[in-house]
Amino acid sequence: MATPSPGYSIIVKVQAPSTFTATSDLTALVAEAGAAITALDIVDASHESNIINLACNTLGKVHSQQVRDAIEAQEGFKVLSLSDRTFHMHQGGKLQTVSKVNVRNRDDLSRAYTPGVARVCKAIAKDTARARELTIKRNTIAVVTDGTAVLGLGDIGPEASMPVMEGKAVLFKQFANVDAWPVALDTKDTDEIVAIVKALAPAYGGINLEDISAPRCFEIEARLREELDIPVFHDDQHGTAIVTQAALNNALKVVGKDIADVRIVVSGVGAAGHAIIRLLQASGAQHILAAGRDGVLEPNTTQRDEHRQWLADNTNQAGFSGSLKEAMVGADVFIGVSAPNLLDETDIASMNDDAIVFAMANPDPEILPTEASKHAAVVATGRSDFPNQINNVLAFPGLFRGLLDAGASDITEDMLVAAADAISETITEDELNPSYVIPSVFNTRVAPAVAEAVAEVAQRNGNAANLVTGTQDDIDF
Amino acid sequence: MATPSPGYSIIVKVQAPSTFTATSDLTALVAEAGAAITALDIVDASHESNIINLACNTLGKVHSQQVRDAIEAQEGFKVLSLSDRTFHMHQGGKLQTVSKVNVRNRDDLSRAYTPGVARVCKAIAKDTARARELTIKRNTIAVVTDGTAVLGLGDIGPEASMPVMEGKAVLFKQFANVDAWPVALDTKDTDEIVAIVKALAPAYGGINLEDISAPRCFEIEARLREELDIPVFHDDQHGTAIVTQAALNNALKVVGKDIADVRIVVSGVGAAGHAIIRLLQASGAQHILAAGRDGVLEPNTTQRDEHRQWLADNTNQAGFSGSLKEAMVGADVFIGVSAPNLLDETDIASMNDDAIVFAMANPDPEILPTEASKHAAVVATGRSDFPNQINNVLAFPGLFRGLLDAGASDITEDMLVAAADAISETITEDELNPSYVIPSVFNTRVAPAVAEAVAEVAQRNGNAANLVTGTQDDIDF
Repeated sequence: MATPSPGYSIIVKVQAPSTFTATSDLTALVAEAGAAITALDIVDASHESNIINLACNTLGKVHSQQVRDAIEAQEGFKVLSLSDRTFHMHQGGKLQTVSKVNVRNRDDLSRAYTPGVARVCKAIAKDTARARELTIKRNTIAVVTDGTAVLGLGDIGPEASMPVMEGKAVLFKQFANVDAWPVALDTKDTDEIVAIVKALAPAYGGINLEDISAPRCFEIEARLREELDIPVFHDDQHGTAIVTQAALNNALKVVGKDIADVRIVVSGVGAAGHAIIRLLQASGAQHILAAGRDGVLEPNTTQRDEHRQWLADNTNQAGFSGSLKEAMVGADVFIGVSAPNLLDETDIASMNDDAIVFAMANPDPEILPTEASKHAAVVATGRSDFPNQINNVLAFPGLFRGLLDAGASDITEDMLVAAADAISETITEDELNPSYVIPSVFNTRVAPAVAEAVAEVAQRNGNAANLVTGTQDDIDF
Repeated sequence: MATPSPGYSIIVKVQAPSTFTATSDLTALVAEAGAAITALDIVDASHESNIINLACNTLGKVHSQQVRDAIEAQEGFKVLSLSDRTFHMHQGGKLQTVSKVNVRNRDDLSRAYTPGVARVCKAIAKDTARARELTIKRNTIAVVTDGTAVLGLGDIGPEASMPVMEGKAVLFKQFANVDAWPVALDTKDTDEIVAIVKALAPAYGGINLEDISAPRCFEIEARLREELDIPVFHDDQHGTAIVTQAALNNALKVVGKDIADVRIVVSGVGAAGHAIIRLLQASGAQHILAAGRDGVLEPNTTQRDEHRQWLADNTNQAGFSGSLKEAMVGADVFIGVSAPNLLDETDIASMNDDAIVFAMANPDPEILPTEASKHAAVVATGRSDFPNQINNVLAFPGLFRGLLDAGASDITEDMLVAAADAISETITEDELNPSYVIPSVFNTRVAPAVAEAVAEVAQRNGNAANLVTGTQDDIDF
């Protein structure tokens, strides 16, 4: 049975009688209507009546109207308005710009703006590397999309993608104090997107590509990585890969298997599947089968694009031939980034003992976790209503924190490995169990650990800038 | 004689003896060295010595070194570091992004981000006009430059332009609560700049073009105004024009002349001069002479570009022929947006009685205000060290506040006139005098007055959107 969800949370403004029992009557009838009450405030009162704001989780629009009707049916109660808390939260957007300096008087103005600012401009013109010291570049990244593959909604356009990009910027700030700015582009042309991001780059210390449909996302990322001197990251690929790898590291510990020995079936050969497989190999995986709609990719076959070709050439060394379901027989690990309900209970039962199942298709997984857990030792999904949620929020804030701290010019594969390891290591041996292979997104140890690990790799690789931080004898006029 | 300036303010960190007179000895010798002390703090202490941070204004780099030498020459004093307060203020940039919503727990996350945000995205995809209600578009503008005409520094590139763009964003926020984001583009190609700004536009409620060199700025502005459904403003043109017009309105009141009657000489036929002349005419001016390097533009001549051609065709109806200096004879008003030291005292003496002189070339005006004021009744400049500073900060924050409040799709000439009138009217008849024809940039009445006037014109013209603001029965899932 469905349960009321905070995603369908409403505020009902009710005019109620001023009797002693009115509030308890109201909560009783709302509960009876099946909604879960989360807050109740009397916001206005008179001798005859109270105005009550009641917040509750519902099952959706129809249910929220039923709640309204139930209240109105009660003698003396009247619903003044019904509002959706999610929409309420989005009024006017979720992000603002705030000054880091005070401009209280003419002296302040003469330093923050003209004429003093001219000296700062001249210093950067003389040496553009000083942009990382004297402008927002040091702590600012762009979250770039064209709105073509937003969540599971597909091509909804730049305007409609903004709430996701703003939300992402909010998370960057909250979890890692990174200033992120949403850049939702009104073009789907690959060349134009590349040209625009290149033109925007001087102001930013990094680029986070987001929700751009495949295969354009591959080319855009590859060209920008080649042409820019700041790190470029496609979260839908590498963010997902990092967190999947982190969860797998711990799941393998739980079952006592080694990554080099296990047979891994990956369902989904798009952007995410491709990145996951590359990171699995970088982390030591030897036996990977990649399954698309037409079954497992095989060596010595010709694929329809270079990314699938790479997968065919670099996985399935044993030359297995067959469907996804056939591949599952005897497998140790299943990783799904594909489509709902591709597997059933018998497929999981056909896996090796102590099987690991990550069913991450969104919003409906390849197999229901309740089904999978009957036969698998460890089960994870992308959903927040089951244990072991594979959520990119664990990766991207700390990753960019580390890149910015190091002044890194590029993202390398060993940084991705280091980030995954840092996430899995936030769970201690004592804490580790089949329902806890990946930390909560609200675990405050994660982002700093990821940042430190990534910055350390950047320093080691010579991928870091020598950032000017002191102000000793910094006289520039 | 030059005076120490807050633009050359330094912090000297000094190790001083812990004697009772050490602090007064230090301030005395710094004052004797010609610096103006603005603050002094003891930041650390031991039995033997105090560490003192001393902030003072100097004349520049050489002078600040002289201050250092003077301190070091004193027995027992040692300078630990010297730092430039302007550079200090710019460390890490001047702007940050801040969330407007709290994400404290999973319920918050499910509304601000997935899965709840998907409903908000879908609502905008269905009706993109809702972007003004549900995204940052409602309160956010882009400050766009290509770094080709930054302050008086010329083409210094996008990185080096950032401190000015960030400063501008700081002022937008401080004076009118507008969220402005700096967009410094690494391209000088007109077509590419137009294409980029068009692609960026869905996220913004307005575009402020800034420090783009002429004549490209004309074409970029014109094409974007034509093709976008949000207002596009070139501050170097229209911001300057608004504030000039505001000052002129009041200066004419001081001398008791009518704008329709006065003879006005404008020196400078670039972007600013062009915009000033158009606004003068929209405000009722009838007799304008526009002077370039080769003298006054004349009707029935062929000019080298369409903007000068427009000026030649639409000014100087009397067919005056001659140099700038010749045009000054008998003129009532001089407005200079051209070059330093083009005029001398005798040119001002040759003007009509009760002459008005706005010498705004930056940083050195067409004539020193001290010279001009010997013969003119009202003198204004762009500088903060004389009365009557013509500063764009008086116009752009309030203007965009009004445009955003109205959800305006365009900027019309009557909005510019209304903005100028609103600025001049913040000075009452009782306050008005020759040294006070324009309010201070810190006058908090200015931006709200400009915003109200501009929004009113937008409403009257049908140029405003019907913004959704209530949340009554706002159930969208």
